Amino acid sequence: MIDLYTWQTPNGEKPVLMLEECGLDYRLHMVDISAGEQKTPEFLAINPNGKIPALVETTAVRTDAVFESGATLVYLAEKTGRFLPPSGPERYETLAWTFFQAGGTGPMLGQWYHFEKSAPEKLPYAIERYRKESLRLLGVLDERLKDREWIAGAYSIADMMNFGWVRTGLSALKTEGAADLSNLFAWTERVGSRPAVKAAIEKLDQAKRAKTG
Amino acid sequence: MIDLYTWQTPNGEKPVLMLEECGLDYRLHMVDISAGEQKTPEFLAINPNGKIPALVETTAVRTDAVFESGATLVYLAEKTGRFLPPSGPERYETLAWTFFQAGGTGPMLGQWYHFEKSAPEKLPYAIERYRKESLRLLGVLDERLKDREWIAGAYSIADMMNFGWVRTGLSALKTEGAADLSNLFAWTERVGSRPAVKAAIEKLDQAKRAKTG
Ligand SMILES: N[C@@H](CCC(=O)N[C@@H](CS)C(=O)NCC(=O)O)C(=O)O
Ligand SMILES: N[C@@H](CCC(=O)N[C@@H](CS)C(=O)NCC(=O)O)C(=O)O
Repeated sequence: MIDLYTWQTPNGEKPVLMLEECGLDYRLHMVDISAGEQKTPEFLAINPNGKIPALVETTAVRTDAVFESGATLVYLAEKTGRFLPPSGPERYETLAWTFFQAGGTGPMLGQWYHFEKSAPEKLPYAIERYRKESLRLLGVLDERLKDREWIAGAYSIADMMNFGWVRTGLSALKTEGAADLSNLFAWTERVGSRPAVKAAIEKLDQAKRAKTG
Repeated sequence: MIDLYTWQTPNGEKPVLMLEECGLDYRLHMVDISAGEQKTPEFLAINPNGKIPALVETTAVRTDAVFESGATLVYLAEKTGRFLPPSGPERYETLAWTFFQAGGTGPMLGQWYHFEKSAPEKLPYAIERYRKESLRLLGVLDERLKDREWIAGAYSIADMMNFGWVRTGLSALKTEGAADLSNLFAWTERVGSRPAVKAAIEKLDQAKRAKTG
């Protein structure tokens, strides 16, 4: 059985998108990061870095504990043989755009969001630094999607990686002054209209409400 | 033949560590990022994100172009069957700590370095934000290395990923106030004393000097 430990956030939804897409059975455990549940000894035993998401699969022969959203997606892709080609150029394109999110659109949009929305002081230099880099990264994705339906070949873990922060960025942050991002907007619509994506978002929403009331 | 496009930086050295460790033949192309060479049309055709490192391998049957340091390491590991187990729990541990670098020690130490050393204004809030998160991440690695020689099983791409920024962080940034990081210091010594690591650092150093004089 697969146990997924997560929360309703751009990183936390990634493995849910994948589990739903693959139709796998799993138990969803909501780890309330606003209440610090990611820092309990029980959770740190699964992810010593104290962040969601993390996944544990126990079978008769072994237990896999996987943390980091990127690693959970590769794990599930290799388990099912889906959404990441097993070999060939398309495999490494998919992995390149997966890491592009892990080190690019993930942390940079995250920092932008922080300085724009959450930081106790308004720091124009920091806001501008992350706004500029985030818009550049979004522009790279937009250009990539100019003549493609999905980021790398067929719908893949690269799309699942990038979806959450791109959607949050495009809706919650001011993208005025950015180059035209219409390919990217169209892609978020395409991803968002997949039945598995809708199911994932709905499940997380319900589970969060069940937990926090 | 493998063509590697890179520069002498914590991210740029990762694939060199791997190529040297595997004893593969490769051509080293120095992309001077201080002169903007990562934004030329030729380089953007290899990595549309305009960052080093990137790798191109051409064989009789196909061409692989791989960008993002993490993806180059997985590519080389899967090509050679080395430094990333092909299956089993250790594979996903290795990938988890690889992504931990891509989204954690990489960007966070990078931001700390920026605000501490390069930003035109001293912004105490930003310095403290990234100092705190970086020291926390280094502490997670230190704890991980308490009873281990390498980050995940045998020496692996997870060590190669984390080495550059950890070494830079420990030597260039003030880690006073951090928990004891002695396991991490010992690990950087261990990694740094590997012949392939010494050869990689030396080659990058020479190639940079040959290019910039
Ligand atoms: N690189 C990590 C990032 C995970 C992450 O940042 N998780 C956030 C929620 S989106 C979290 O757990 N925050 C709580 C904390 O850091 O204490 C991944 O992709 O899994
Ligand atoms: N996540 C990327 C980061 C690459 C990166 O930040 N490269 C830097 C040098 S360490 C670079 O090319 N900077 C020049 C630029 O951004 O224009 C990776 O791991 O490959």
